[in-house]
Amino acid sequence: MAKQDMSEAEFDARHAEKMKKKKATRDKIMSTKTIEKGLLIVHAGKGKGKSTAGFGMIFRALGHGMKVAVVQFVKGRIERGERQAMERFSDLVTIKRMGEGFTWETQDRQRDIAAAHQAWDVAKELISSREYRIVLLDELNIVLRYDYIPLDDIVAFLRDEKPEDVHVIITGRNAKEELIEIADLVTEITQIKHPFRSGVKPQMGIEF
Amino acid sequence: MAKQDMSEAEFDARHAEKMKKKKATRDKIMSTKTIEKGLLIVHAGKGKGKSTAGFGMIFRALGHGMKVAVVQFVKGRIERGERQAMERFSDLVTIKRMGEGFTWETQDRQRDIAAAHQAWDVAKELISSREYRIVLLDELNIVLRYDYIPLDDIVAFLRDEKPEDVHVIITGRNAKEELIEIADLVTEITQIKHPFRSGVKPQMGIEF
Repeated sequence: MAKQDMSEAEFDARHAEKMKKKKATRDKIMSTKTIEKGLLIVHAGKGKGKSTAGFGMIFRALGHGMKVAVVQFVKGRIERGERQAMERFSDLVTIKRMGEGFTWETQDRQRDIAAAHQAWDVAKELISSREYRIVLLDELNIVLRYDYIPLDDIVAFLRDEKPEDVHVIITGRNAKEELIEIADLVTEITQIKHPFRSGVKPQMGIEF
Repeated sequence: MAKQDMSEAEFDARHAEKMKKKKATRDKIMSTKTIEKGLLIVHAGKGKGKSTAGFGMIFRALGHGMKVAVVQFVKGRIERGERQAMERFSDLVTIKRMGEGFTWETQDRQRDIAAAHQAWDVAKELISSREYRIVLLDELNIVLRYDYIPLDDIVAFLRDEKPEDVHVIITGRNAKEELIEIADLVTEITQIKHPFRSGVKPQMGIEF
């Protein structure tokens, strides 16, 4: 029976039946999900919003009173909002800003490489300490894109040495295949439409 | 000259040159972006993380001390973390939880429709008040998917009546073409890999 031939009440009844089935299916699926473990999460893709989504997870965890750590591999000018927001959770959050500025800002490869290694050492320490439920490695992918740290080292650590109960989130464009391979949750963020194209400038609260 | 034929110093010099050009291009592009305006932002796609990214923007704005409002069109059980995190910004944030539960939870179409209309009225009021720099309409797309509110009403309001200086963020899967059409910034979030597939259950700080 098509929608137009039904009375409103019939349509409502059919809707209720459909939703009941949907709920039953969903409940059944969820009951099979029983494993709890620290995840390796990768936010990839070309769209803006990879870090935003990563920080969204961080704030949600902070809302639960979880301790979290953030390592910034690239010191951008875009993260002032997040940093200031995290200051309200100074009892729960540890922030390490290690990057020496974006590569096209510094134009100094050796300094970038040294900064990347320093940041990675700090990241490993924070993850291994098991003091933090989630560790966000912001813009790690960019460091890998320029081969500043051997990919094998990072994959080996995350796969073999990361404590079972720690979640690690990695953001940045051009995620390496090898990282996606070992990740539990991979989200791709793509821009379909961007205001830059219409000459709109980056605005506080949106881009930074 | 291939990388292996260059000395480290030569490679560094070439890197510096490349980055310098990249920065110049970027600076030039940015200088043409001069318009400031309230954006209509849509987070679409099938991946989890649409709301997470939306809330990420909200927290960034809160970090800047901006006033924001959130209207929840669907009362899920997944947003406790965000809600509790926002409580630390109670001076800046207004939260309206209007939804009557997910449609497959209530199975009552008439109640859902009434709740959706109530939520939309509140949303319009918050946006029009100009008291908030950003208004997040969380899961509005789901309401539209079930035709609980006429799409034309929503498009007309956002296109013609939204104050110029207010940003509006809309989240939820199955974004309508007509909304994408009038949006300034559209981000699609896709899941490449999901831990559910390996039997991992939703975990605090990750899924809720």
